[in-house]
Amino acid sequence: MKKVGILTSGGDCQGLNAAIRGVAKSLYEEFNDEVEIYGIRDGYSGLIHGNYTKMEKRDFSGILTLGGTILGTSRQPFKMMRVIDEETSLDKVKAMKDNYKKMGLDCLVILGGNGTHKSANMLSEEGLNVVSMPKTIDNDVWGTDMTFGFYSAVDIATQVIDCIHTTATSHGRVFIVEIMGHKVGWLNLYAGIAGGADVILLPEIPYDIEKVADVLEKRERGGKQFTILAVAEGAISKQEAAMKKKEFKASRAAMQYPSVSYRLAAELESISGHEVRVTVPGHFQRGGSPCAYDRVLCTRFGAAAARLIKDERYGFMTGLRNGEIVAVPLGEVAGKLKKVPVDCDEIVAARDMGISFGD
Amino acid sequence: MKKVGILTSGGDCQGLNAAIRGVAKSLYEEFNDEVEIYGIRDGYSGLIHGNYTKMEKRDFSGILTLGGTILGTSRQPFKMMRVIDEETSLDKVKAMKDNYKKMGLDCLVILGGNGTHKSANMLSEEGLNVVSMPKTIDNDVWGTDMTFGFYSAVDIATQVIDCIHTTATSHGRVFIVEIMGHKVGWLNLYAGIAGGADVILLPEIPYDIEKVADVLEKRERGGKQFTILAVAEGAISKQEAAMKKKEFKASRAAMQYPSVSYRLAAELESISGHEVRVTVPGHFQRGGSPCAYDRVLCTRFGAAAARLIKDERYGFMTGLRNGEIVAVPLGEVAGKLKKVPVDCDEIVAARDMGISFGD
Amino acid sequence: MKKVGILTSGGDCQGLNAAIRGVAKSLYEEFNDEVEIYGIRDGYSGLIHGNYTKMEKRDFSGILTLGGTILGTSRQPFKMMRVIDEETSLDKVKAMKDNYKKMGLDCLVILGGNGTHKSANMLSEEGLNVVSMPKTIDNDVWGTDMTFGFYSAVDIATQVIDCIHTTATSHGRVFIVEIMGHKVGWLNLYAGIAGGADVILLPEIPYDIEKVADVLEKRERGGKQFTILAVAEGAISKQEAAMKKKEFKASRAAMQYPSVSYRLAAELESISGHEVRVTVPGHFQRGGSPCAYDRVLCTRFGAAAARLIKDERYGFMTGLRNGEIVAVPLGEVAGKLKKVPVDCDEIVAARDMGISFGD
Amino acid sequence: MKKVGILTSGGDCQGLNAAIRGVAKSLYEEFNDEVEIYGIRDGYSGLIHGNYTKMEKRDFSGILTLGGTILGTSRQPFKMMRVIDEETSLDKVKAMKDNYKKMGLDCLVILGGNGTHKSANMLSEEGLNVVSMPKTIDNDVWGTDMTFGFYSAVDIATQVIDCIHTTATSHGRVFIVEIMGHKVGWLNLYAGIAGGADVILLPEIPYDIEKVADVLEKRERGGKQFTILAVAEGAISKQEAAMKKKEFKASRAAMQYPSVSYRLAAELESISGHEVRVTVPGHFQRGGSPCAYDRVLCTRFGAAAARLIKDERYGFMTGLRNGEIVAVPLGEVAGKLKKVPVDCDEIVAARDMGISFGD
Repeated sequence: MKKVGILTSGGDCQGLNAAIRGVAKSLYEEFNDEVEIYGIRDGYSGLIHGNYTKMEKRDFSGILTLGGTILGTSRQPFKMMRVIDEETSLDKVKAMKDNYKKMGLDCLVILGGNGTHKSANMLSEEGLNVVSMPKTIDNDVWGTDMTFGFYSAVDIATQVIDCIHTTATSHGRVFIVEIMGHKVGWLNLYAGIAGGADVILLPEIPYDIEKVADVLEKRERGGKQFTILAVAEGAISKQEAAMKKKEFKASRAAMQYPSVSYRLAAELESISGHEVRVTVPGHFQRGGSPCAYDRVLCTRFGAAAARLIKDERYGFMTGLRNGEIVAVPLGEVAGKLKKVPVDCDEIVAARDMGISFGD
Repeated sequence: MKKVGILTSGGDCQGLNAAIRGVAKSLYEEFNDEVEIYGIRDGYSGLIHGNYTKMEKRDFSGILTLGGTILGTSRQPFKMMRVIDEETSLDKVKAMKDNYKKMGLDCLVILGGNGTHKSANMLSEEGLNVVSMPKTIDNDVWGTDMTFGFYSAVDIATQVIDCIHTTATSHGRVFIVEIMGHKVGWLNLYAGIAGGADVILLPEIPYDIEKVADVLEKRERGGKQFTILAVAEGAISKQEAAMKKKEFKASRAAMQYPSVSYRLAAELESISGHEVRVTVPGHFQRGGSPCAYDRVLCTRFGAAAARLIKDERYGFMTGLRNGEIVAVPLGEVAGKLKKVPVDCDEIVAARDMGISFGD
Repeated sequence: MKKVGILTSGGDCQGLNAAIRGVAKSLYEEFNDEVEIYGIRDGYSGLIHGNYTKMEKRDFSGILTLGGTILGTSRQPFKMMRVIDEETSLDKVKAMKDNYKKMGLDCLVILGGNGTHKSANMLSEEGLNVVSMPKTIDNDVWGTDMTFGFYSAVDIATQVIDCIHTTATSHGRVFIVEIMGHKVGWLNLYAGIAGGADVILLPEIPYDIEKVADVLEKRERGGKQFTILAVAEGAISKQEAAMKKKEFKASRAAMQYPSVSYRLAAELESISGHEVRVTVPGHFQRGGSPCAYDRVLCTRFGAAAARLIKDERYGFMTGLRNGEIVAVPLGEVAGKLKKVPVDCDEIVAARDMGISFGD
Repeated sequence: MKKVGILTSGGDCQGLNAAIRGVAKSLYEEFNDEVEIYGIRDGYSGLIHGNYTKMEKRDFSGILTLGGTILGTSRQPFKMMRVIDEETSLDKVKAMKDNYKKMGLDCLVILGGNGTHKSANMLSEEGLNVVSMPKTIDNDVWGTDMTFGFYSAVDIATQVIDCIHTTATSHGRVFIVEIMGHKVGWLNLYAGIAGGADVILLPEIPYDIEKVADVLEKRERGGKQFTILAVAEGAISKQEAAMKKKEFKASRAAMQYPSVSYRLAAELESISGHEVRVTVPGHFQRGGSPCAYDRVLCTRFGAAAARLIKDERYGFMTGLRNGEIVAVPLGEVAGKLKKVPVDCDEIVAARDMGISFGD
């Protein structure tokens, strides 16, 4: 009897349940039902505190289309993993290893993004058998061309821009749509192109507010009263980009706006004289049923994870490269961030189309 | 040859083009193509400044599903209508009457919400032949059970709550979804019920922050870590409701948060200790293609408006009462607001289900 | 302790779970959790065969958005209810009464359409305490302005017509979209108007194939190569309408086409020379998550049903009349069919717009 | 002044307008508005008969989200291209070349699928400057990993299966969903996996009806009353696969069912005793607004096509390989079909999950 634990960690996204179902159904098939699957609650927290349940085959039925994660999730910052809690004296890493043994696991399947993979790699280095899958709407996990959750979020963000389009054109207004993405801009880049935004501001390309204002003016001269700006949460001005990290943090902390979009709106109103509206879809972007693309990807990742377990190949993340499913060593994944290359074809195509990146 | 002008005024919503198409196609049928339709640009602004176009039959094809308004729209506050602009000496009312005559119109069709209908009634009283249709996502126009745009906005707001649900349950988090509606809460009431919100805060029912916090605590005791609050833009606390108008305005002006949801989040975090996230879908709620319900309603309103014109019955708004299309005198509509009755069945049912209104 | 049984019967539709949740949550609230709810499996079949489960409060969480019915459903023709099965000697009516008593029920909540209500009324007349709710995508239940499921199905059927529109215009083609509805045409009427169909064929208005072909020709003369026909499953020609019932049945049984749409396509191709494509969305129309409108309606119906049980008012169906929730005696509902009045405003408006009903 | 003609040919799909917009906007940018774009009507037909219009920049605004093709399309079988029409003596190839010259084109941009590319290559060999883009919901164009239209169709087909799921589980029924695809099964494979179908029948994998019936039986033994089969239009039995081409064609011509799904349903009913329902979404799958994935792909293809024109690199199709945009010689594309490899990872993963391919 094979024993496998599963946990989902970090911010949730679409497709987590599809991926859980993928690995579970494949495990039951691969091991001819000779497998016990344990659902570990709320990410690493459940592994630390021994909060888990033995799951039944039927628990994985009907969850393909379900948003969120049936296992629950929580954020457990990697840098706190090794820190011993003073009050409780809890050694989290030891606790996770102890619970892994207590559960008698042959393997731990971890679904998570960047932070999650640092801890996954650490647990692997600590001797646990780990197989992971890359989830995040940010598509910023190193070692895979695509993470699941990404295209579902792109669909939602695009729908928001689509709807803003009709009201923007009707009123001849300037709109900022704030798209999720603090460190990387894949989501905003794709949604911006798909939604037909006029300006796309990414964390990877610092913007010049004057250049942004020029777009409004140029469009107005061309008879277009409305402009739509797709702005990543992590959009950054050229001045900010030139700051030292500490200085930047202090500057942002002192910012009187809830997010950069509001600041940008105020600045643009001041420069251009246009009224600028802000829309913040927020967590809406990571909720609901996964799109078809993600469901297929999750199923493939899940089946691949089950095969790794069957073959006792541990310490890998399932990844997609050039359309093929690959196994990426966790050590290669951990601690890296897959940013948008500023000269990638998507950006070149967008510029060719006349879309401004504010630079 | 009958000559009819059409304008759309105020904030846009779904279904404007469907209603424009409805009246136009019906007019062409009713008058056997012996009708000229003039599209007046950007609401009353186009009538004031003589900005209009003769439209062709084909202009009304393919617009049934289109969001926004092909005529453009703008806000023209009623209280400014009679104010003569000092610089330009422009008498707006006179200008509108002059342009109406200059265009040789037999009738002016006006699509708008509450503000729009004050001006529509005034123009009717000034002698213009006016027929109007009630548009707004707020469903707050007096004299009709339903305005178009409402159910389309409910669909979107519900979708947002649906998606927030999956992330809220996965993380065990408290979420506020801010739904449009400054003065009336129909949209929030319907989206809140349809989305399965736990708390619904309406402008019509002042809330007690302690009562709201009690819901979180009670749900936690019942094993539910997450709570979803559907909060109207115009939600108001009991303390605020007790203020005099001037005092209230000053208090809100001094509020350090971009909207009431952010203040509520801060207060709830402070009282309950839960982290509270805010989502602001904003203008997304009024954009995009109208839902099927609205398309049928717009078509019926449009056909009814054409019949009124055919019968030379002017000074009416098309309305829906008990499923029937009626003609409501503009004088009955103007200046009134259809608020949510606090004892309406929808609220009773929601309370029966255990939904809290924070009171 | 109050004991309530719930069953869903007949063809499923969107909103069944929302209505189940509505009545269940309201019952728990009304009776302060002093209520036991029994889920009866697969409609009357479960009541006949004693197939039921005691449900827990948590069973009703998270099902608001879920399509289908968590209780299962089956068709049990009313005319067979009194027929004693020869092989098993099973007296179905007696069995249902026995199981009702065995379960110790105070009330039986029945969700169903026309056929279901005949049996519900019969059980009520047999002395069982029955409260019912009107479900069906057909909106043909007597005594209520609206059934739940209807608008969700309209949304889907409209989406199909929308998509067919883009391909029809691109190719200049004639398309038939077959919409559900064997006896009544509400669904097709609403979807046809909402989708902008050029021809709408209803069971209530027999068509003349020559008149339908005229529409194609007239549109072609007007420069429009494409035509979209929304055809109800129960569309009927004038010749057929003139037949005696027996003759008609024989004629249809001998029809070489899987449904009337295919026959119509063949006839139109022969008369007009146009290629005619047929699309049959079928059961797709009754699946998936209920729309916001239905969710609110289901919640109101559910709360109203709970109030009836609280007040021990049995023998009623919850209904919607003029926007108000009403209790309709089962005897008034059973055996009647709410057809589309051929002079209703929706049809008048559609004709005003130039839509043909083929008559 | 650069002169570029554009035409769309063959069955339409989502994204055609997005791709048209992509190449047009990029051309205006690349050539600093020194370009004239001619829209050729209804595919090759417009080129043959000289039916085209000079387009303006504004014609390409607002079409990103629009389904179908603003240029119209038609099917022009390649094998008829060289056939001289007896009545009219029309030499189609010569006519196309003549019109190309008459219009003074520098390049002809062709959007189409497999058939279209045979003609595109022929025109290129005849000396016209051709650049093409691969469109089709079938994803069967050789030389590119992905065609646009594919993922939009997958989304729709998946939605249909999703909805069928809720009704299938509620009734415990067997359903066949017929997915487009006569020769290749990509669409059905992806929708089947994404929709969670239990059986997927592809043109590439002949099925054994007994094996399919076994799935129903096995599921029933496992307590699952419902089964969903995703069946490609071109699904083929093992017996049929063993036939000679002529024999097969005769056999299909004699088939008494409108499509293979109906035959399969009848056979399954006969073998298994289950009632089997058939749903045929048909052209619905190729209509409506393109999904975000397709919009990005169309934009990239469009920009790439404009770059090819800028660089005067003719005789190429834009393609996607390993995430990169490439230029594929038309000669490599024409006449080939990209079938689903029976051992591809998607199929392996599906089998790992327990999905049957009926073989």
